[in-house]
Amino acid sequence: MSGIYLGCDLGGTKLLVVAYDENFKVLGRARKKTKGHEGAEAGLKRIGDTILEAVEHANAKPEDIQVVGIGCPGPLELDRGFVREAPNLGWKNVPMRDVLQERFKRPVFVANDVDLGVYGEWRFGAGKQERCVVGMFPGTGIGGGCVYEGKIFRGKVTSCMEVGHIPIMPEGPLDGAHNPGSLEALASRLRIAAEAAQAAYRGQAPFLRKKAGTDISDIRSGVLAQSIADGDKAVELIVKQAAEHMGLGIVTLIHLLAPDIVVMGGGLVEAMPKLIVDTAAKCVSQRVLPSYKGTFKIVAAELGDDAGVMGAAAWARAQHETQP
Amino acid sequence: MSGIYLGCDLGGTKLLVVAYDENFKVLGRARKKTKGHEGAEAGLKRIGDTILEAVEHANAKPEDIQVVGIGCPGPLELDRGFVREAPNLGWKNVPMRDVLQERFKRPVFVANDVDLGVYGEWRFGAGKQERCVVGMFPGTGIGGGCVYEGKIFRGKVTSCMEVGHIPIMPEGPLDGAHNPGSLEALASRLRIAAEAAQAAYRGQAPFLRKKAGTDISDIRSGVLAQSIADGDKAVELIVKQAAEHMGLGIVTLIHLLAPDIVVMGGGLVEAMPKLIVDTAAKCVSQRVLPSYKGTFKIVAAELGDDAGVMGAAAWARAQHETQP
Repeated sequence: MSGIYLGCDLGGTKLLVVAYDENFKVLGRARKKTKGHEGAEAGLKRIGDTILEAVEHANAKPEDIQVVGIGCPGPLELDRGFVREAPNLGWKNVPMRDVLQERFKRPVFVANDVDLGVYGEWRFGAGKQERCVVGMFPGTGIGGGCVYEGKIFRGKVTSCMEVGHIPIMPEGPLDGAHNPGSLEALASRLRIAAEAAQAAYRGQAPFLRKKAGTDISDIRSGVLAQSIADGDKAVELIVKQAAEHMGLGIVTLIHLLAPDIVVMGGGLVEAMPKLIVDTAAKCVSQRVLPSYKGTFKIVAAELGDDAGVMGAAAWARAQHETQP
Repeated sequence: MSGIYLGCDLGGTKLLVVAYDENFKVLGRARKKTKGHEGAEAGLKRIGDTILEAVEHANAKPEDIQVVGIGCPGPLELDRGFVREAPNLGWKNVPMRDVLQERFKRPVFVANDVDLGVYGEWRFGAGKQERCVVGMFPGTGIGGGCVYEGKIFRGKVTSCMEVGHIPIMPEGPLDGAHNPGSLEALASRLRIAAEAAQAAYRGQAPFLRKKAGTDISDIRSGVLAQSIADGDKAVELIVKQAAEHMGLGIVTLIHLLAPDIVVMGGGLVEAMPKLIVDTAAKCVSQRVLPSYKGTFKIVAAELGDDAGVMGAAAWARAQHETQP
């Protein structure tokens, strides 16, 4: 055993850990419910236990661990792996790196989950190790990330690339921070579900209504995709308009960062890759400056849920190996 | 003479060259009209002649030149110093680096003029050598640049950070590329002049009307500032609205790049630094995400026209010294 590399993705509902060998071949996986409501202390113990389980599934021992990478939502302090706030877990001020490093006596690195997903796509997926890869992941909000010359683009203390919070319509609807017309106020899965629920309520989306009713908690990506496939034109128009707004956000990303590849991912895009990517790309092609034409591609993510864990493991390894 | 470092700023109307010693103390300056309409060949000769003049004013000889840095508007290929297009000079496909390198037999580097202005502010001015400095320079359009961990953020072939072309109002007025609601369509000096001309025409800006009439070519930054000082309330409201739009653009820059400092510069900001910077900063403080509050400053540029030439000389030196 020449050592194992662990990637962990801490989601709002589930917790996924994968153990890789030095060539990033999967050796073992483990998955648990996150149960954020039980508090951070219990949560960190669950993360540790899930890590142990993945190590066991890899037929390895804890001392074989080379490095652990953890992707976590919300604002966190990168250099000390300190979670300031994970809103969808209800956690605040959690010294995640220190606690897990103390338990395993192995190096632990913590970063933003979307950044690590983009890193995973850059390293192993749709990003193809290009010089500059930007990711846009619409979900409850819209997450983003950027890998520039092999490194995650970051703020001084925390992560950045909050693509969901760029203003694109001064008088638009309010986002979760009460700002009008942010990209995620116009184009998140949550927004799409809310628009689709209205269409269902008005009788314009009979298939959606039958399958999911008008409760936006039940209107998930798969249901949206299915009702479009069944013939709910109104839902298709809603998704298309959202994808056009994503396109406007991508115009901003291209004009600022000149990425070689824009990767669109997350459950919504996975459920309707062609509709969303093609619509966004068309909007971009109509708006991008002539000198930028032909300099970028817009593609769907390739790795699904594995992007986050692979990215976490690979990034943690790169951090460990380049650390002074 | 331990060698001189030359910075050149190639503007639409004037051409400025400054010779520095190794501590970036000014040794000599030279300035000519650009006369872009005479064509690229004549233009490159004028640049060379102006370089020679600056060298002479520095009491030096051409062989003392260590390196030449040139800031040039428009899309250009950074690695080979090739100007694809300089729209306000009427030049296309100009091998600027090669021609000047051939003439002086010294290393020449060419970059985007706004990028070099931001680099100058990062190195010597308002940017204070921070980890991440973003610049916004409203003029005929709105230029931008970013210095990230000591390097100019760039595209694979050309420069990027086209902050003037980020869409902030889907149904807004058209910009020069015929796109609706780009930042520069709403907040450039040209837009402000066009709005102010209408106010003057309607009799709502008597001081402006008296000084500059209703020809937008005559409504320059200084005239706008003076008419506000004289009491043209309508002009003040127009500038304020534009500054609020700049603020929206800065919200985007902060949420994406998490800069430590945002530097606002150019003639318009120089003429009304407090009005524009304070108004933009207020808009930003109302819209920025809580986790970003207190992580950045928004300041006026400090170096004026010297930012571009100092930046060009310092950047060229850094490029030369780190080249493989």
